Amino acid sequence: MNKGAGETSYTQNSSLQQKIISDSRPITEKAVEAIISTDATSASPPQSIAIADLGCSSGRNALVLIFDTINLVYAKCKRLGYPLPEVSVFLNDLFNNDFNSIFGSLPDFHRRLKDTNSDEVGRCFISGVPGSFYGRLFPKHSLNFVHSSSSLHWLSKVPEGLEGEDKIWMNKGKVYISRTSPPSVLLAYAAQFRNDFSRFISSRSEEMVSGGRMVLSFMGRKSMDPTAAGTAHQWELLAEALTTLGLVDAEKLESFNAPFYSPCMEEVRMEIEKEGLFDIDQFEEFDVEWDGLAEGANSGLKSLSRGQRVAKTIRAVVETMLESHFGFGGEIMDDLFEHYEAIVEDYLLHNTVTNTNLVISLVKK
Amino acid sequence: MNKGAGETSYTQNSSLQQKIISDSRPITEKAVEAIISTDATSASPPQSIAIADLGCSSGRNALVLIFDTINLVYAKCKRLGYPLPEVSVFLNDLFNNDFNSIFGSLPDFHRRLKDTNSDEVGRCFISGVPGSFYGRLFPKHSLNFVHSSSSLHWLSKVPEGLEGEDKIWMNKGKVYISRTSPPSVLLAYAAQFRNDFSRFISSRSEEMVSGGRMVLSFMGRKSMDPTAAGTAHQWELLAEALTTLGLVDAEKLESFNAPFYSPCMEEVRMEIEKEGLFDIDQFEEFDVEWDGLAEGANSGLKSLSRGQRVAKTIRAVVETMLESHFGFGGEIMDDLFEHYEAIVEDYLLHNTVTNTNLVISLVKK
Repeated sequence: MNKGAGETSYTQNSSLQQKIISDSRPITEKAVEAIISTDATSASPPQSIAIADLGCSSGRNALVLIFDTINLVYAKCKRLGYPLPEVSVFLNDLFNNDFNSIFGSLPDFHRRLKDTNSDEVGRCFISGVPGSFYGRLFPKHSLNFVHSSSSLHWLSKVPEGLEGEDKIWMNKGKVYISRTSPPSVLLAYAAQFRNDFSRFISSRSEEMVSGGRMVLSFMGRKSMDPTAAGTAHQWELLAEALTTLGLVDAEKLESFNAPFYSPCMEEVRMEIEKEGLFDIDQFEEFDVEWDGLAEGANSGLKSLSRGQRVAKTIRAVVETMLESHFGFGGEIMDDLFEHYEAIVEDYLLHNTVTNTNLVISLVKK
Repeated sequence: MNKGAGETSYTQNSSLQQKIISDSRPITEKAVEAIISTDATSASPPQSIAIADLGCSSGRNALVLIFDTINLVYAKCKRLGYPLPEVSVFLNDLFNNDFNSIFGSLPDFHRRLKDTNSDEVGRCFISGVPGSFYGRLFPKHSLNFVHSSSSLHWLSKVPEGLEGEDKIWMNKGKVYISRTSPPSVLLAYAAQFRNDFSRFISSRSEEMVSGGRMVLSFMGRKSMDPTAAGTAHQWELLAEALTTLGLVDAEKLESFNAPFYSPCMEEVRMEIEKEGLFDIDQFEEFDVEWDGLAEGANSGLKSLSRGQRVAKTIRAVVETMLESHFGFGGEIMDDLFEHYEAIVEDYLLHNTVTNTNLVISLVKK
C-alpha cells in the first residue's frame, strides 16, 4: 500500500475498499449481534469481548470496521439492557504497515465513539498486532469476533513453481492467471491459495472461542474457471500496460507475478469443509464496480473519469510491489499508470465488467 | 524522546536507561520466576502468560526488557520440565511513540529469541498498546507480569497550581523543584505525583491477575526533602543553561516546568500501602552515575567526556519537550546543549553526585 496522505496514497484512493466494507455490513451486523446473543444463552451478559481486524491497513479504512463493530456491540447490549462489556480491539497488518498513523488517530477515534453513543461507552482497548495472518497471531481461545476485508485475496507469497526449468518463466508477458497461461500456472496459484487459506483457517480456529464469529470479505470470481473473461481482468490490463510501455526490462517482466488469487465460492467452501473447524452461516457474492465509490467519497475522486479512478485505486495498492520488483519509480511509474489509465478507459468503453466480492460468515465449532 | 537513529536520537543516547534495566535485573528475575512458581502450586503449569512493558519507548531499549523476560520464563519452565507457555507481550507507550520502528525490528527479535534458546521456544505474540499508563490500558485480570523502567518519574502533566494569581509564575528561573522554590511548588509536584501514581496502581490492579507481579524502576531521591542537594540536579543545571544562554524568552522560561518527579521511598511506600492493592515483595534503591554506561555501550559514547554524555542523554529525552514549549530548535537548540554540556562538565569537576533509582517489586493481592 502507498503510505502517507498524498495524491497516490492508499488513504486517498481506497474508496473502493470502503464501499466493500459498507456492502458487507448486513452480514457483519448479524455476526456481531450473534456474539452477544450467544453469550446471553449462558448465565450472564459478556463482561469482555475481543475483536480482531486482520489486514486493517492504515489511513481512512483502518478504523472503519472497528468503529462499526463497537457501535453494533453497544447497540445490541443497550437493547438487551446489558451493561456494556470491555472491548479489546486488535488491529493486524504486516510488520511494515503504518501503525503510527493509526495510533495517532486514536484519541480522535475515542472522542467520536463517545459522541456517537452520547457518552454511554464501555472501556475500549485498542492495540496493534503486526505479523502475517497466515500464521498464529493471538493466544488460544482469546477472540470472540474476527473480521477481514479486502485482504485475503493477497497470497502470502508469489506461488512457487512459476519458474520452469532453466530459468524459463512459465507465465510470460502476464502478471496473473490469464487465458494464455499454461495449466501449471493455474495449478500453482490454486495450490498457493489452498495452502494459505487453510493456514489462515486453522490459525484462527485455535485463537477463537467456541461460538465465536468470523466475517471474511475478499475478491473472488464467479466462474469455476479462473481464466474466464472478466476475472481479475485489471491484472491482464496491467500486464498489457507493462509490456507496451516499452520501458520495462523484459526479463523482469517475465519474472513478475502478482501474489494474488481470487477464488470462486466452491474453492472457499471446499477448504472450510475440509478443515471442519467452522460452520458456514452465510456465504454471498456481490458485484463491485471496478471504480466503486463509497458514499461520501471525496469530490476529487468523484470528478475523475472511470479509467482515472481505477488507475488510482490499483496504483495505491500495487505501486510498492512494482517498485521493489522492477526497481523503477518516479516518472516511469507515472508514465506506466497514465498508460494503464488509457488502456482501462478504452477497455471500459467496450466492455461491461465488474469484480466479484465474496463475503462469508463463519461460526467457530 | 528524540526519534530516529541520528546523533541526538534516543536510540543512540539511552545507554543510561539500559544500564538501569541491567542493574534491576536480579529483582526482575525473581519476580518472573515467581509467576511460574505461583502457577505451579495450582494443578497445572501455565499455558499462557501475558506480560506488559509500560513506557517501552522505541529504539535499542524497547525490546531489551521483553527479551530478558521471555528468556527467564523459558529458562524457568525448562528447569521445571514444564512445556513452554504461549507468551503474549504488550508494549505500551504514548500515542506518538515510534511503534513502526519497534514493529520493523520484530522479525529479527524472533530470530534472536530462537537462536538464544536453540530453537526451543514457544509461541510469542507481540503487540503495541498506545496510550497513557495513568489510566486503564488492558482488560480486567489479563496480565501476569508488568514491568516499567525509567518511565514513572514522568508525570501525566505539569502539575497544576504552578501559576499563581495574575499570571505570576511561582517557580521563576527554575524548571523543577529547586532550593529556592516556594513551598507551594513542592506541594504541587508532590500532589501530582501522588495522584498519578495512585491512578497507575489502581489501573494495574484491575488489569492483573491475583498473584501477578509488577516490577517498577524509576528515578527517585534519597532524602525526604525534595530540595536536598544532588536531587535531580540535572534540571537545576538545565535551568541555569536556559537562563544564562540569553536567547530564551523570559516569560516562556518562567512558565516552563518539567512534568517530572523523583519520589523518595517513603512516598512510594505510602501510596502503595494506602491503596492496599499490592504487597511489597522487594524495595531497593541504587545509585546511578549521571553518565552511567551500559555494558556494550557504543564506542562513540565511551570516548566522550562526562559532560558530553550527560548532555546527550538529557537532550535525547527533553528536546521535543523544550521545542514544543519554547518554539526553537536547530542552532539555538545546539547552542543550548553545548552551553549545558559546559555547565555540567564544570559541575561534575567540583561535585561528587549520583542519581538514585528506585526498584520495587509488587505482588497483586
